[in-house]
Amino acid sequence: MNPDITRERENATFNVEKLTHILDGGIEKTKRRREIGKAVFAREVNEDLNFLSRSERYDAAVKKSAQMILKLREYGISDPEEIYCYKSCVHRGRSEPLDLHLAMFLPTLLNQASPEQMETFFIPAWNLEIIGTYAQTEMGHGTHLRGLETTATYDPATQVFVLNSPTITSIKWWPGGLGKTSNHAIVLAQLHTQGKCHGLHAFIVPLRSMNTHIPLPGVVVGDIGPKFGFDEVDNGYLKLENVRIPRDHMLMKYAKVEADGTYVKPPSAKLTYGTMVFIRSMIVGEAGRALAKSCTIAIRYSSVRHQSEIRPGSPEPQIMDYQTQQYKLFPLLATAYAYKFVGQYMNQVYHRITGDISQGDFSELPELHALSAGLKAFTTWTASEGIEVCRMACGGHGYSRCSALPDIYVNFVPTCTYEGENTVMMLQTARFLIKSYRQASAGHQLSGIVSYLNESERRLQPQSVSSRPTVVNVNDLASLVEAYKLRAAKLVELAAKSIQQELQKRVSQEDAWNNSAIDLVRASDAHCHYVVVKLFAAKLGEIGDTGVHSVLSTLALLYALQGIQQHSGDFLQTGLLSVPQLSQVSQRLKELLAQLRPNAVALVDAFDYCDEMLNSVLGRYDGNVYEHMFEWARRSPLNKTEVHESYHKYLKPLQAKL
Amino acid sequence: MNPDITRERENATFNVEKLTHILDGGIEKTKRRREIGKAVFAREVNEDLNFLSRSERYDAAVKKSAQMILKLREYGISDPEEIYCYKSCVHRGRSEPLDLHLAMFLPTLLNQASPEQMETFFIPAWNLEIIGTYAQTEMGHGTHLRGLETTATYDPATQVFVLNSPTITSIKWWPGGLGKTSNHAIVLAQLHTQGKCHGLHAFIVPLRSMNTHIPLPGVVVGDIGPKFGFDEVDNGYLKLENVRIPRDHMLMKYAKVEADGTYVKPPSAKLTYGTMVFIRSMIVGEAGRALAKSCTIAIRYSSVRHQSEIRPGSPEPQIMDYQTQQYKLFPLLATAYAYKFVGQYMNQVYHRITGDISQGDFSELPELHALSAGLKAFTTWTASEGIEVCRMACGGHGYSRCSALPDIYVNFVPTCTYEGENTVMMLQTARFLIKSYRQASAGHQLSGIVSYLNESERRLQPQSVSSRPTVVNVNDLASLVEAYKLRAAKLVELAAKSIQQELQKRVSQEDAWNNSAIDLVRASDAHCHYVVVKLFAAKLGEIGDTGVHSVLSTLALLYALQGIQQHSGDFLQTGLLSVPQLSQVSQRLKELLAQLRPNAVALVDAFDYCDEMLNSVLGRYDGNVYEHMFEWARRSPLNKTEVHESYHKYLKPLQAKL
Repeated sequence: MNPDITRERENATFNVEKLTHILDGGIEKTKRRREIGKAVFAREVNEDLNFLSRSERYDAAVKKSAQMILKLREYGISDPEEIYCYKSCVHRGRSEPLDLHLAMFLPTLLNQASPEQMETFFIPAWNLEIIGTYAQTEMGHGTHLRGLETTATYDPATQVFVLNSPTITSIKWWPGGLGKTSNHAIVLAQLHTQGKCHGLHAFIVPLRSMNTHIPLPGVVVGDIGPKFGFDEVDNGYLKLENVRIPRDHMLMKYAKVEADGTYVKPPSAKLTYGTMVFIRSMIVGEAGRALAKSCTIAIRYSSVRHQSEIRPGSPEPQIMDYQTQQYKLFPLLATAYAYKFVGQYMNQVYHRITGDISQGDFSELPELHALSAGLKAFTTWTASEGIEVCRMACGGHGYSRCSALPDIYVNFVPTCTYEGENTVMMLQTARFLIKSYRQASAGHQLSGIVSYLNESERRLQPQSVSSRPTVVNVNDLASLVEAYKLRAAKLVELAAKSIQQELQKRVSQEDAWNNSAIDLVRASDAHCHYVVVKLFAAKLGEIGDTGVHSVLSTLALLYALQGIQQHSGDFLQTGLLSVPQLSQVSQRLKELLAQLRPNAVALVDAFDYCDEMLNSVLGRYDGNVYEHMFEWARRSPLNKTEVHESYHKYLKPLQAKL
Repeated sequence: MNPDITRERENATFNVEKLTHILDGGIEKTKRRREIGKAVFAREVNEDLNFLSRSERYDAAVKKSAQMILKLREYGISDPEEIYCYKSCVHRGRSEPLDLHLAMFLPTLLNQASPEQMETFFIPAWNLEIIGTYAQTEMGHGTHLRGLETTATYDPATQVFVLNSPTITSIKWWPGGLGKTSNHAIVLAQLHTQGKCHGLHAFIVPLRSMNTHIPLPGVVVGDIGPKFGFDEVDNGYLKLENVRIPRDHMLMKYAKVEADGTYVKPPSAKLTYGTMVFIRSMIVGEAGRALAKSCTIAIRYSSVRHQSEIRPGSPEPQIMDYQTQQYKLFPLLATAYAYKFVGQYMNQVYHRITGDISQGDFSELPELHALSAGLKAFTTWTASEGIEVCRMACGGHGYSRCSALPDIYVNFVPTCTYEGENTVMMLQTARFLIKSYRQASAGHQLSGIVSYLNESERRLQPQSVSSRPTVVNVNDLASLVEAYKLRAAKLVELAAKSIQQELQKRVSQEDAWNNSAIDLVRASDAHCHYVVVKLFAAKLGEIGDTGVHSVLSTLALLYALQGIQQHSGDFLQTGLLSVPQLSQVSQRLKELLAQLRPNAVALVDAFDYCDEMLNSVLGRYDGNVYEHMFEWARRSPLNKTEVHESYHKYLKPLQAKL
């Protein structure tokens, strides 16, 4: 054990184990998570995927996934949360070829297949005779679903749907596992029957022979090539050329096409809404986890890395002693905690509302939909940037694949784009906010998280900066939550006014919206920031242990104050903060950094990522970084021979010619 | 040609070719650059490195570099700028195994070898009998050179230096071309002679047999393994175990060790300063180029990509019509132009000052050193983030390696760390600023770029926000330059005061400095931002063509105003801007985006990256993105067979077991 890191742990002022239980949601959950980890890591060989070619990486992932399926059955693990945990251990948080089979194909069957279809498809899919993926996005169409071009035309004579990719832009593009792994796909296509288009519906399309795995006639399928990350996944393309599937291959739990081609509408359009909200909520938790891992690596490394000098002639200090390093890492550590708690909250709300929905009560769905969209964007943007800050805080070694940070980045950053492009998500949330604002302006009393807009008319009269009384106490979290709330209210109001001004120029509603989009995104961002600060503060109320409460309070304050510093223009502009208070904020931030310094390593230990899971030389629990980096490097494939063949092929002949 | 992109070009209001000449520095330079490109691309096969394994990528790069050397000799290209241009075309801006031989080994010989050493080493190195690298950083030591641990101990009995890596942290780590390519290295080591350590000196160390390329006794050398980018380069490690080199292998143009071990000091410590300044200045230009490429790709793609709807029922608009998309891309486009001009300026200043230095005049070196450090950090941070913004502005396809954006990012982002870690660079600039501030406070009249600190005492008296007269005209670039200047002056003052306050708490100078580091970095950042805005404005004065002048003026204004919006807290806090003015800034920004819209494609066309150079499917000049993306994907190695072997190895057996 590296003595620096041992000393860090000795200096901690709280019980790490207790905090871990809070993060897991209870002592039992911690125990179970560790059991699963132990079971996985006892048998998994730690082969570094970074040393392999892409084809080998895909191969290794399929091998692991196949073994995983067998083990899950053997151990009788069927709880979705535990499956997720097991899978995370096996693939170290990376995506894998069977992801969409498990997380999209099977759930979509459960949600949208009729009882007869369940009988036909579910057991084969459960037993991986049918390996499925979910083919939605097309080469020319992503977030805007109505624009999808794939067609499914019903032919009553033969009672089949004929599927086609009518243009190059309609080729299905990106679905994971589509390229080489799946033999079926749920394909989203525009349904045409009796001469009319009824919009997007889902169809089960066989892609490859169940015996030989060779693509079926009319199916042009393959891998879309190397990407930024996701090296283990065969994201694929799919071009359908008059592919005929039986009528009962359209998912018919809700909408139906009868034998004669009569279209029967689904009872509610909102029924297919839920999965999207669920996945976006999950991503929020994922942002917390990705950032937690990155902070673990960067903070442990910063405690063992020595560099430069603060005082001339003294030994090189731990780089965590530099204020600039603390300023990079500790606010991100606070953010990781914030997002983990927001993730827990979203999960709870989702399950509560799902209960309501199953009883026909959709009332809370719009708010949850808006919240999950905005928070997904807000957290993934910040976390992505944060991972890179952590990586660069490790200096040169952060660039080595052995740090694991490049992998965390490239595997996380796609969350900014998939499941709804972030800017589009922010604008969806803005739509809800503006609608709510207008309702409040019209005298309706809002409830839920946007209820603060009720107060906007009363409290946010335009006032000059100097005449506004100062209400914010920069040392009081509740007061800061209030400030974030008023900022959000003000920015929603500004965005609404921008739309109003545009309309006065006689442009259309839609152009007025587009011409105010910058303000709308800004308003959504402020709304989400408020929600995160509020939830972090609320979480503190649940924590009984004094030591843990104290350190989390410091983190929450740091999180709130750093946000104010970063957006100081907003707080000054809206008159919520005065110039002298802003100096106080800066001063207080520096004090909080110094206050957190002794607990930094313990706070990342509490995330409880074991070495096998982190898979990072820089983030090792024992802090013995350098010897293991050397050992790792020596295993690089380029070191298999002393002299690389290129020497004989190119350099020696070159020397001879010059 | 895609009709959308054709229409964009028709709408441009200025002469693209004229702007290209300005960017190149004259019509003749444009011509020569194109000639070189043509010569390279006529013979280079465009093999996509992304489809290869790392060993194959290294192999391909060595092959290209070897051919390149022959061709450069054949064409008689010897001007460093032209060599750089040729190399950029061959390797499409990527680093390659011979980079350090050409850019560090040969120049270091030229600068630091004695005439006798030149005779011994230069011609063999020129002819690649000697392939060299520059081994400075160690596993445990990067930016802080004094901390390097490698030793070179002189033995007068045998007249040799004995080189050693005494610890694991002293193993040389990261030098490009060290792993497999080089047979020599210039090794930086602590010189010990006559029982005394004289600090870092440079030694030529043979690493591998000139005949067999096998490592010499005592030399443990190899590749440090896969990284984030730089897949073609064999960054290496080097452990020296009692490696003995003759006395004349120490570079002795300045410092010397005589046969008996007597150490002779160099005449000036500043003589080895220049290379570092030069490389940092180069990196500033590189930031402009990386951002220019990224903007070219994202803006061309945004003009042919259609998505969603602004008005219901209308066709999907070009995504460049969304205000949010313009707000992402156009300020980055302005930044790319700004950095290109700053790069030109740095290059000129460097050459001017080098002339002075060769005449023994070092007076401007401290300022240039401080400026190059800060600007290197300022531009590389912004450009790195900007590349990712461009990438994500391309939606899902930005993740595909065929977009080229992932490559641009991973190959550029290391500039934030190498040649001086960015935060350390910012603090170096801050040191110069604080020193200058103190001189001004003591009544000395400053000259050069920091002369604005002369005015600080007079003009920046603390005043309440409301009583300050508003001086800034947000429509006038000169007025905005002034605002940036005053912001920098104010933030330098704040940082100086923070140090003062710390000192009053009776902490040491060094701790006071560290406890103010956040403020110091902020001050440097403001200083650099001022310099960039100022230089952009100054460049406009050189431009005669009305059309070009007009569009560049819009870009410069956009650049300045967007920076104010992003740092609005600073401008409000320092009383340089009022709250109503900030709303004006927002409004004006939106107008500028709309104003630039018709010129966006033409402005990236003016960067004049040919398709071969960009190597991006999304950034194609003809805008025909989708067909080429499909074609590219089909060439993916995973598509070589219809059924991947993993199906037979794992999936079929799994199906049988379930």
